[in-house]
Amino acid sequence: MKIVIAPDSFKESLTALAVAEAIGEGFRRILPQAQYRLVPMADGGEGLVQSIVDATQGEKFSTQVTAPLGNKVSASWGMTGDGQSAVIEMAEASGLHLVPTDKRNPLISTSYGTGELISTALDKGLRRIILGIGGSATNDGGVGMLQALGAKFVDKTGKSLSFGGAALADLAQIDMSGLDPRLQETRIEVACDVDNPLCGEHGASAVFGAQKGATKADIQRLDAALRHFAEQVQAQLGIDIQTPKGAGAAGGMGGGLMLLPQVRLRSGVQMVIEAVDLAAAIADADIVVTGEGRMDGQSVHGKTPIGVAKLAKSAGKPVIAIVGSLREDYPAVYEAGIDAVFPIIRQINSLENTLQAGRENLISTAENVARLWQIAGKNALRAD
Amino acid sequence: MKIVIAPDSFKESLTALAVAEAIGEGFRRILPQAQYRLVPMADGGEGLVQSIVDATQGEKFSTQVTAPLGNKVSASWGMTGDGQSAVIEMAEASGLHLVPTDKRNPLISTSYGTGELISTALDKGLRRIILGIGGSATNDGGVGMLQALGAKFVDKTGKSLSFGGAALADLAQIDMSGLDPRLQETRIEVACDVDNPLCGEHGASAVFGAQKGATKADIQRLDAALRHFAEQVQAQLGIDIQTPKGAGAAGGMGGGLMLLPQVRLRSGVQMVIEAVDLAAAIADADIVVTGEGRMDGQSVHGKTPIGVAKLAKSAGKPVIAIVGSLREDYPAVYEAGIDAVFPIIRQINSLENTLQAGRENLISTAENVARLWQIAGKNALRAD
Repeated sequence: MKIVIAPDSFKESLTALAVAEAIGEGFRRILPQAQYRLVPMADGGEGLVQSIVDATQGEKFSTQVTAPLGNKVSASWGMTGDGQSAVIEMAEASGLHLVPTDKRNPLISTSYGTGELISTALDKGLRRIILGIGGSATNDGGVGMLQALGAKFVDKTGKSLSFGGAALADLAQIDMSGLDPRLQETRIEVACDVDNPLCGEHGASAVFGAQKGATKADIQRLDAALRHFAEQVQAQLGIDIQTPKGAGAAGGMGGGLMLLPQVRLRSGVQMVIEAVDLAAAIADADIVVTGEGRMDGQSVHGKTPIGVAKLAKSAGKPVIAIVGSLREDYPAVYEAGIDAVFPIIRQINSLENTLQAGRENLISTAENVARLWQIAGKNALRAD
Repeated sequence: MKIVIAPDSFKESLTALAVAEAIGEGFRRILPQAQYRLVPMADGGEGLVQSIVDATQGEKFSTQVTAPLGNKVSASWGMTGDGQSAVIEMAEASGLHLVPTDKRNPLISTSYGTGELISTALDKGLRRIILGIGGSATNDGGVGMLQALGAKFVDKTGKSLSFGGAALADLAQIDMSGLDPRLQETRIEVACDVDNPLCGEHGASAVFGAQKGATKADIQRLDAALRHFAEQVQAQLGIDIQTPKGAGAAGGMGGGLMLLPQVRLRSGVQMVIEAVDLAAAIADADIVVTGEGRMDGQSVHGKTPIGVAKLAKSAGKPVIAIVGSLREDYPAVYEAGIDAVFPIIRQINSLENTLQAGRENLISTAENVARLWQIAGKNALRAD
């Protein structure tokens, strides 16, 4: 029997590898003879680097970059085990968690550090970049990132724009001639699981601005600035970043990335599925086990377990999910390919204690899933 | 396929019947063609009357009796569907929950009301009584119960002892001649899952006194009074109530009951198993599902799911438990016959909200158990 264990991380508690190991430990107690393949997964969100590095036995590095408010911060990024691709999470350089709550201000926050991370990966000779853009503190249309890579954005006096979303309103001239030439031969695949356009009521500022610290007035100002930016890009470069879906991701980072030569926005979990070659792992599996910290009706929109389940279902495999918690609207996941789902909480407790018990509860739940799997199988054979 | 669903109640949340119905609803979503047999269960604790009445389609009655502190209270009791047996819970008449916390005092609390309930059952012509003695407020050696049934306990001045455990110290003479003659032909089966002797460090007063409101000094006084009571019983009636295990149950009620002609102390869950004829229900089952509100290492000591599991295992049936919560030391239940166990909690929440979500969570968990059962069975047949 072959069992593939391909969960996402449990946020604030366990990495995807740790989750996979715990599930494996529970299963092994009952089915010690089975072959286990642990494939730590992620979608485009938190844990992308760790999961791909773990799954491909790659490497992790740390680089000093510019944080959203201009100070320096140490950012992690990764390289796949085959040495071919960089894996970068925007949040490591430009994430909301890097800014104290009372200082959060997308008017002045920059994505510059993310550009520096891309540059560092190019320095290492990597020409394929897997980029996750979740969790950003910025609303600057990715202009900071482009500045770090050599593009110039100046106002009507010829002065470089300062950092942040507000300054885009003063944009007069775009000069891409200084752009790092290595980007011409570099494929950037962007994990993007939102459909938001750059501007308007479903745009970056209106939908994500408030959680980054923008007031109502700020949001209007930011939205107008992004619109002006898009109009200048259309006029000066002939690139449409207002219409495409996903341009509004990460404070317009989705749109800004479209100014680079070889960029593609894709489903995050699909990118991870490819990066870790999940299809090959699943091919001869008898069971596929997945999971995530919290499963709900939204899980069907591009989250890890559903990506795993769809692939597994296309290969006709049973899919079991083991999850941290399960919200009322979760039954949508059945239609998306999850055959059965088990939450791991065993008793009422504080969030802190529950997170702390995560590994133990995962092992216990996995053991009981394996127990039920085993007796149901025996019973079917006996009844047959 | 035949599925027997035989859970205990979930305390403070759902009756055993409601639990069985919810589990059945979850299973039916996936296995609508299966035959379901719902057998609400109990051990000797809370829910004994309701479960046996539900399982045998019996009747419930209500009778005014004497509460522990002498006031009147309305107590429920039941009759089995065959009209042959009364089912009585001591707690209905003499329970701790009937006394406000600040008035709890085993020095003066009486088991008189439980005797009145027995008498009422005799009036109805019933000559077999199933008696649960959990949750009592009393430490009177069952003397109140015996008084209600016609026995006389007097001090050296010939005056009847007043209510409560303290008065036993004054006992000089026992007169059983007035005992209700119908008890000669009445079998009383007492659900008793504790081994405590009447007196001493493992006795009724020392082990259960404090939770009934006794101070340290009270406990010494109550223990000495019970010892004096036992010595008088030995001397005047030739009955040993000091040595037998279980005599210390329910504040010495276990011992006091030994003064009646046809009394047997037995495992509560075994009595319920017989009363609901669980063996017949299980005989041709494919799966047995049980459960309880909280499963832990203590569950192996006479609690419902273990009784169900042992019976099911002796018939070679798979046993799945679905439980409200699961404590760290629960794995002992595997050795006792539970094949797999699933807690129903889906997310961190308050106790109140969690209890309120009990039915929904039970249905959901049962559905997923059925889902896993089904795919594991299909998989085994395909692999075979």
